[in-house]
Amino acid sequence: MGWMNNETGLERRTANHVPLTPLSHLRRAAELFGDREALIYGAFRLTYSEYHARVSRLASALENAGISAGDVVAALLPNIPAHAEAHFGVPACGAVLNSINTRLDADTVAYIFDHGEARIVLADTSLLPVVEDAIARMEGPSPRVIEVCDRDAGFTPTGRYQEYEAFLEGGDPEYSWVMPEDEWESLTLNYTSGTTGRPKGVVYHHRGAYLMTMGTLVSWQMTRYPRYLTIVPMFHCNGWNHIWMLPLVAGAVVCCRQPSASEVNRLIDEEGVTHFGGAPILLNMLANAPEEERRTSQHIVQVFTAGAPPPAATLAAVEPLGFNVMQVYGLTETYGHVTESLWREDLWGAEDDERRFRRKARAGVRLPMMEEVEVLAEGGRAVEWDDTDTGEIMHRGNTVMKGYYKDPDASEAAFAGGYFHSGDLAVRDAEGYIRIVDRAKDIIISGGENVSSVSVEDVIARHHSVSLCAVVAKPDEKWGEVPCAFIELKSGHNATEAEIIGFCRTHLAGFMAPKKVVFGELPKTATGKIQKFELRQAAKAL
Amino acid sequence: MGWMNNETGLERRTANHVPLTPLSHLRRAAELFGDREALIYGAFRLTYSEYHARVSRLASALENAGISAGDVVAALLPNIPAHAEAHFGVPACGAVLNSINTRLDADTVAYIFDHGEARIVLADTSLLPVVEDAIARMEGPSPRVIEVCDRDAGFTPTGRYQEYEAFLEGGDPEYSWVMPEDEWESLTLNYTSGTTGRPKGVVYHHRGAYLMTMGTLVSWQMTRYPRYLTIVPMFHCNGWNHIWMLPLVAGAVVCCRQPSASEVNRLIDEEGVTHFGGAPILLNMLANAPEEERRTSQHIVQVFTAGAPPPAATLAAVEPLGFNVMQVYGLTETYGHVTESLWREDLWGAEDDERRFRRKARAGVRLPMMEEVEVLAEGGRAVEWDDTDTGEIMHRGNTVMKGYYKDPDASEAAFAGGYFHSGDLAVRDAEGYIRIVDRAKDIIISGGENVSSVSVEDVIARHHSVSLCAVVAKPDEKWGEVPCAFIELKSGHNATEAEIIGFCRTHLAGFMAPKKVVFGELPKTATGKIQKFELRQAAKAL
Repeated sequence: MGWMNNETGLERRTANHVPLTPLSHLRRAAELFGDREALIYGAFRLTYSEYHARVSRLASALENAGISAGDVVAALLPNIPAHAEAHFGVPACGAVLNSINTRLDADTVAYIFDHGEARIVLADTSLLPVVEDAIARMEGPSPRVIEVCDRDAGFTPTGRYQEYEAFLEGGDPEYSWVMPEDEWESLTLNYTSGTTGRPKGVVYHHRGAYLMTMGTLVSWQMTRYPRYLTIVPMFHCNGWNHIWMLPLVAGAVVCCRQPSASEVNRLIDEEGVTHFGGAPILLNMLANAPEEERRTSQHIVQVFTAGAPPPAATLAAVEPLGFNVMQVYGLTETYGHVTESLWREDLWGAEDDERRFRRKARAGVRLPMMEEVEVLAEGGRAVEWDDTDTGEIMHRGNTVMKGYYKDPDASEAAFAGGYFHSGDLAVRDAEGYIRIVDRAKDIIISGGENVSSVSVEDVIARHHSVSLCAVVAKPDEKWGEVPCAFIELKSGHNATEAEIIGFCRTHLAGFMAPKKVVFGELPKTATGKIQKFELRQAAKAL
Repeated sequence: MGWMNNETGLERRTANHVPLTPLSHLRRAAELFGDREALIYGAFRLTYSEYHARVSRLASALENAGISAGDVVAALLPNIPAHAEAHFGVPACGAVLNSINTRLDADTVAYIFDHGEARIVLADTSLLPVVEDAIARMEGPSPRVIEVCDRDAGFTPTGRYQEYEAFLEGGDPEYSWVMPEDEWESLTLNYTSGTTGRPKGVVYHHRGAYLMTMGTLVSWQMTRYPRYLTIVPMFHCNGWNHIWMLPLVAGAVVCCRQPSASEVNRLIDEEGVTHFGGAPILLNMLANAPEEERRTSQHIVQVFTAGAPPPAATLAAVEPLGFNVMQVYGLTETYGHVTESLWREDLWGAEDDERRFRRKARAGVRLPMMEEVEVLAEGGRAVEWDDTDTGEIMHRGNTVMKGYYKDPDASEAAFAGGYFHSGDLAVRDAEGYIRIVDRAKDIIISGGENVSSVSVEDVIARHHSVSLCAVVAKPDEKWGEVPCAFIELKSGHNATEAEIIGFCRTHLAGFMAPKKVVFGELPKTATGKIQKFELRQAAKAL
């Protein structure tokens, strides 16, 4: 401990210790880059000065509406400007933003409203039915609804609630922000999607979000004036903290209400998008887009993908289209990405596609704001770097949540032993890069052998007719469990169950090949993740 | 304040709160970039793995030598590898690094040894005479000397002390570092050059150095693998914190023991240097280098300059040589640079040289790790953005020192009113960019009028025969004070006192023109700053 023998007069003071908060980033951008474009949605375009003023109005209007420091303000919004504004405006009055998954059912939304004690909810017109249904199901006091009506997307205000723009009008553009007095104060509340049981409320602090933005910029090598397209929903780890990050480099947020291949490609061309993040499923959409929906611009777009390793076939298809893909890995509990498949061009630049794509399918190594991302086997032993020895990914660092809201037992369990337990199983290869083997609960145990569903999926994805696939456990009298594959075929392609099983047997041990194959559309979460929970239910019923 | 109504189980834990420290950067670089070149000095070349191992040895050897957490380890070293290693190795055993200006006299070094209570000093062979003289003058217990013998620079060990390499040999390359338990723990102790009275000991904390490295990288847009040349001495704000910063981007530190135009240009060519920092005087050297000492490589080198605004003539001379110069401003008390003359190519890219260079002479705007850099007039009023209204630059942010060591009164005075008082006078122009008018103590008051010495220097520097100049107050019976100019001429050039005064009168108000001009070499500090204190003494004696 570096305390000198006389530290008199060396204590923290107002002048030398300022709580870290992402609010500082927008303040600085308004000061230095007030004239630069900040937030874009079709004809709606804000400079940093205007963005700052609208955020101030929002904070002021919330305070006028009775919101006090520490109160929860919820949002049920697509990736439209009001959602970005809420990321600054809600904390700027000292409140906590609870951005809710827009695909949840009313019952779950009601649970979240009650559990989080939301006092106000900013809701898109299209989501008012679920919000109203949820409010009707609530046990506690209901939140006041502010309607965000996206007229340009064809909506008409219901007339039942104050509209967001009118609400802002009542706020003061010169409002003096409530800055945190302690960087551990709560910033946002994000409910996990929770495949079983009730969702848990993950609490972020100001310090973590500040350090997430810094570490991400440094490691992703983002220089000034990026143009970032919002595909990752802002309700998912607060859009990976990017809304808070962009002012640091005077970047522009390009909003995208409804991502599709044609819309993404159009925005890349028209708005000069340089970066976006999205699940591999989105890359698939881009890869499979018909000629007339493809982008025409030539610049390389940096794409960060998460949720599942990008299949080699997808990488092979999107690279020639001008997308440079890097996989990142993280959880809601870690503010999003905390490892990245950091590309060493100096070492691997000359390798053939097969090797390159295999490397790119790794979750990779930790970003700078994380102190440790370990893979620990039973008893806390670090796994060998042999690509085989399997353990659970454990996290320690400044972008790990405060804990689960009103659930100290779950927090205690998640933090047992001084690490956050991810529940993800992984190996490390000879370079120390982490490869996710499976979610602990996604492992299939067949005849006593562990079958990694991810490994089987990797093989199936290489079949030329397969667009998407997922492998889950199907109960089996003889083997306990057997792998069962669910497959979406590419349009215009055909394949049979026997063909897929045969294909797997040529690439995998027999016990790893699926015993059953089902064709059809796969159920997905709002963030594009395949809902394995539903598939497991379906497999049981087969 | 964003405390939610129930924060049970949401407290700081080992897993989610890690004290910020630059030590983390080297640990990560060794983990991720162990094979990359990290530290270079002629034939001496370390990878990040090797760097990490030698730093561990140093920390371990210091601990073996009786150094405990919080103890001070001093260094009197040029910019050679041992000095970089000390920046990590000393704190890695919990100790505090006190890097001492190598041009100080023995009496001042003795004062610093006594005041800082150094237990060990790492000293270059060339500096042993001053170290030994200093030790002889000390009042308290003397530090143990470890001799760093730079054989490649032609030195032979004295044989009187253990050598650095032998000292390292006794250390454990697998030593487990002492990481801070509180990010407010002391990291380094840097004595100000103090033009009057005894130097003051500025104490840095781990948090500040971490945030300095992050903020600098983000704002300077440094991407992976920079090659940084050490011209700024490491005893000056710990080399602007760059030694700690480079591992974050897996950069290489290229050591330069004795900067000269030919040496700097040689290292740019041979080592592919991409970045360096230095005083305008160094830029002058590069501008005036004869043809055979110029660089032959074509890439643009990013240069950060501080200490004084770069004269237009210097910028005009070095730009065609492939140097892109940005001025930064800061003080020892702010860990070095906290403002930068951030260049807006989008706004000013098409301007003529005269305008561009005038813009580049501004100190600019704050870097991201600073919360406020204000210019406040009497009574705390923020100055108008009119390039005229003058105030003192005041700092608030996370890269402001803890305070002055063992001098709570001086700390209290420096932090009065919630800001660190810089003592620098400045204006802000219509864009909000700060321009330094003068050090408070450098203002000349002539006939009741304030004369900015910087403004007069700016004009004199434009004279075609002038290489360097400084203007100070000369006592005067009639006017109180009058400006007095000290000038170094370019080699092969001549000028007379009357010619310089006449030149000034055509560009300045009469009362601002110097009344006296002295030609000759100017006294400079170790960091290349002109010693105005000495010139003021000289002016008094004229």
